[in-house]
Amino acid sequence: MKEKLTVIKVGGKIVEEETSLHKLLQAFSAIEGHKVLVHGGGRSATHIATRLGIESHMVNGRRITDDAMLEVVTMVYGGLVNKHIVASLQATGINALGLTGADMNLIRSHKRPVKDVDYGFVGDVETVDGTALSTLIRAGVVPVMAPLTHDGKGQILNTNADTIAGETAKALAGDFDVTLIYCFEKKGVLRNAEDDDSVISHLNETEFRQYVADGTIQGGMIPKLENAFQAIHAGVNKVVITVATAIDGASGTIIER
Amino acid sequence: MKEKLTVIKVGGKIVEEETSLHKLLQAFSAIEGHKVLVHGGGRSATHIATRLGIESHMVNGRRITDDAMLEVVTMVYGGLVNKHIVASLQATGINALGLTGADMNLIRSHKRPVKDVDYGFVGDVETVDGTALSTLIRAGVVPVMAPLTHDGKGQILNTNADTIAGETAKALAGDFDVTLIYCFEKKGVLRNAEDDDSVISHLNETEFRQYVADGTIQGGMIPKLENAFQAIHAGVNKVVITVATAIDGASGTIIER
Repeated sequence: MKEKLTVIKVGGKIVEEETSLHKLLQAFSAIEGHKVLVHGGGRSATHIATRLGIESHMVNGRRITDDAMLEVVTMVYGGLVNKHIVASLQATGINALGLTGADMNLIRSHKRPVKDVDYGFVGDVETVDGTALSTLIRAGVVPVMAPLTHDGKGQILNTNADTIAGETAKALAGDFDVTLIYCFEKKGVLRNAEDDDSVISHLNETEFRQYVADGTIQGGMIPKLENAFQAIHAGVNKVVITVATAIDGASGTIIER
Repeated sequence: MKEKLTVIKVGGKIVEEETSLHKLLQAFSAIEGHKVLVHGGGRSATHIATRLGIESHMVNGRRITDDAMLEVVTMVYGGLVNKHIVASLQATGINALGLTGADMNLIRSHKRPVKDVDYGFVGDVETVDGTALSTLIRAGVVPVMAPLTHDGKGQILNTNADTIAGETAKALAGDFDVTLIYCFEKKGVLRNAEDDDSVISHLNETEFRQYVADGTIQGGMIPKLENAFQAIHAGVNKVVITVATAIDGASGTIIER
């Protein structure tokens, strides 16, 4: 039987405020078995960029990453946010190791081709080195992954944290019994957008298609769930969509193989 | 016989300019055996701090690190400079891994006690986990170390890169045949400050004391060399003081056991 591993993706908002970060780290510490934390940091990046006189441009919720913005996200995601989480986890006795995709060549990507929009230095993931990550994890290390990858030619690329979490979970599914947890601001996928307690507790792909067809599930939740089912098809055991304070793997919306 | 390992410390100036960084990485790639790169980044930190409206205060060449400056050095050393080097090394086929002392609890320090000067969030190194570093190095990883450590209670501390290089070299001396190379702007320790070619090629402790007594060696070079002899006493095989373009271990001023 494979050992359990939980990959948790948390957005910037949670790790950027001391109170919510503290709660998250407590909940994260309580998770049994191996674990990986993937974090965002967009709000801090926007904040630092503004202070540096650099404007943030977003298209479809994605950041346009020019030279100046790449410097900002490299500093903020790889340095400020990542190292703060690592030092905080070390204080709770968790052997955290901060990583970008460039470190140990863990996540190779290519610059997103320009179609309608030029996203700039944004990476689309090609490969995750699951073997190298597995070795670290089995040695007791807890990877803390910043949303940065590289192209192998010296270029760092800004990369969506949801994608990093999903691709990492898939790459580790051969070696571990993987649960992938996506944290966001709601308790789960809601049956009724107006009612925060109307969480759909379990979801299979047929139900998902029905909910999309009847308009219950819409907007940004559709690609999130498409990714979730993709991860399941690629060998991930369970995907959970939940709020950051309930990451026990039993709360929120659960998708199982 | 122990395997060879070279620990190289380079200042911010070299890694912050593309031309000199490129030359350094070429020279670094050419070094045989295991290796570790320790970098500074003070000029970039000052530059970013200025752009953020944060003043840099230096006392005896050391940076006073208040809350705002700690954020800057965490971003710049741990993110901007470190990840740029890592991605550049990966492009040359070197399996670089960017690290701070918080990562894997590698370097524990305590906040420098306030005596005449309050340096703020500056760390004095207590312990380096040589075993964890050795394991990574033997697995083919090349650590790229930023001048940041932690106190184990969640606090990141700004830490002198020379000290990190020296303490890392000592911690690895039990497992490897260690050469410690300090790069600076001159070709080595000079017999005559006015003559850049008057490099003292070999130096033992008796000669060092004489050179200090007769005024040949003075200023900031004295603590640098005190550290070098300390490293030798602690088991480091060779310390070299040289210019960043000549890091073959044979150029510059050489101190041997």
